[in-house]
Amino acid sequence: MTYCVALKLDAGVLMLSDTRTNAGVDHVSRYRKSFTWSQPGERAICLMTAGSLSITQGILTAIGEGLQRASAGESVETIMNAKSMYRVAQIVGEMMAEQQGRHRTNLLNQGVSAEATVLVCGQRAGGSHRAFMVYSPGNFIEATEDTPFLQAGEFKYGKPILDRVITPKTSISDGLKALFLSMDATLRSNLSVGMPLDLAVLPANDMRFSLLRRIEATDTDWAAMSSGWAGALKTCFGTLPDVDMLGTDD
Amino acid sequence: MTYCVALKLDAGVLMLSDTRTNAGVDHVSRYRKSFTWSQPGERAICLMTAGSLSITQGILTAIGEGLQRASAGESVETIMNAKSMYRVAQIVGEMMAEQQGRHRTNLLNQGVSAEATVLVCGQRAGGSHRAFMVYSPGNFIEATEDTPFLQAGEFKYGKPILDRVITPKTSISDGLKALFLSMDATLRSNLSVGMPLDLAVLPANDMRFSLLRRIEATDTDWAAMSSGWAGALKTCFGTLPDVDMLGTDD
Repeated sequence: MTYCVALKLDAGVLMLSDTRTNAGVDHVSRYRKSFTWSQPGERAICLMTAGSLSITQGILTAIGEGLQRASAGESVETIMNAKSMYRVAQIVGEMMAEQQGRHRTNLLNQGVSAEATVLVCGQRAGGSHRAFMVYSPGNFIEATEDTPFLQAGEFKYGKPILDRVITPKTSISDGLKALFLSMDATLRSNLSVGMPLDLAVLPANDMRFSLLRRIEATDTDWAAMSSGWAGALKTCFGTLPDVDMLGTDD
Repeated sequence: MTYCVALKLDAGVLMLSDTRTNAGVDHVSRYRKSFTWSQPGERAICLMTAGSLSITQGILTAIGEGLQRASAGESVETIMNAKSMYRVAQIVGEMMAEQQGRHRTNLLNQGVSAEATVLVCGQRAGGSHRAFMVYSPGNFIEATEDTPFLQAGEFKYGKPILDRVITPKTSISDGLKALFLSMDATLRSNLSVGMPLDLAVLPANDMRFSLLRRIEATDTDWAAMSSGWAGALKTCFGTLPDVDMLGTDD
C-alpha cells in the first residue's frame, strides 16, 4: 500500500507521500510516489500516485513523453501547457483511462487489482491553486472548502487528525504539523506504509514550490515531531478527566 | 459496518461496540452487537459481533438454544458450562463454521459477503480473564501481552490511539478513556458506525460485570468526554512546536 495526502488550504497546497510499495508482505520495495514539475512563477504541479504501480508508472511515462515532444518543438498539449489545472486533471484522467483500457482486463483475469489513484495538485499563473483526485476510471473530484484534503491509499488511520484540525483557514505551518501527524499515525499502525517520505509545499499564487524535501527515517526534524507528538498526546490523555460512568449503572 | 473493540488489561476486560448495521448507505438499521451472560462470581461472558448479521444472529440463536436446553435439564455443553474460556471460543468457532457451511456458498453466489467476526471475552472461576477473536472459518486468536486489544469491523480509524496508549498495565479508568477516544475517532470519520454504544466492564477475578451500559447519543458523560478530548487535542496540537523544516531545503 501507500499513503498520500494533500491539503488544499487558502494559504497553499501541502503534499506528503510515503515510498513503500508491496505485492504481499514479502515483496516490499521503495518507489517514489510524488512527482513535481515547475516553471517558477508560471506553473507548478505535483502528482502523487497510489495503487497499481504498473498503471501509475504508465501514466508518468505518458506525461514525460508529452513534455519531451513539446520541448522538442512539437505542438502537443501537456500538463505544463494545458489551459487550466482542471484540464491537467482531465489529461491525467485520460492517461489513466488509456492505461486501464490496456491492462485492466488482463490484470483482473489474473486476480490482480488494477485500482490506481493519482492526486493532481498545482497552480498555473492566472488560475487558483487546486487539488484533484483522479480515480481508476479516469474521473476525478476536487478538494473544496468543506473537505479541504484528499487522501489516497491507506487513508483511514490518518483521517481522524485531519478531520479534527484541518479547515481552509489552517496555516501552512499548522497544516504541515497535521500532515506529519496523519502520516505518523499511519506509519505506526500499518506496515505497508513506510519511510522515507516526500514532502512538497506550494504556497498560493507563487507558482513555485517553497519546499521539496525527502524525509529519511533518520531525519531529526521528523523524529522530534514524532516523539513530541507522542509525548504531547500522552500528556493530553493524562489531563483528560476520568470517564464519569464507572459504577453509575448495573 | 460496525466497530467493536475489547481491551484485555491486567485489571480486566473492557468491551465497547456501536449499534449500526447497514446494507448499503440507504438501508441502515440499529442492532445490538454486544451480548452478555453472567452467573456472578462463577462466570461472566461478553460476545461482540461484526459482519454478516444473518451469520452472527445464527450463532447467537444457537448459543441461546443450548442454554435453554441446559436449563431444561438436558446435559449439553454450553458457553456457561464449558470447561474453559478457550473452550467457549472453540464452541463459538464451531457455531460459526456451522453457519458458514449453511449459508456461505449461497451468499457468495449472490455476490454478498459472508464474513463475520465474533469477539469472545470473559472469565470463569478458576481461570483467568481472556479475550478471543473468532474469524469466519471458525478459527480464532487471543489477545496477549504484546497486543492487549482486539478490534472487529471498521477498526482502522480507532487503532492509532490504542497503539499509543494501551499496554497490559493500563488501568480500567485509562482503558475506558482510550476505548471512548478510539470509538469517537471512528464515529467522526465513518458514517457506517453509529450511536448508541454498548459498554461492558469485567474486572479481573470478579466474574461479574461492574458496568453494563448503553450510551445514547444524548449521553452527557459521552458528550463531555468527546468535547473534552476535542479541546485537549487542539490544545496539544497548538503546543506542538512548528515543524522546523520550512525553508531549510530547496
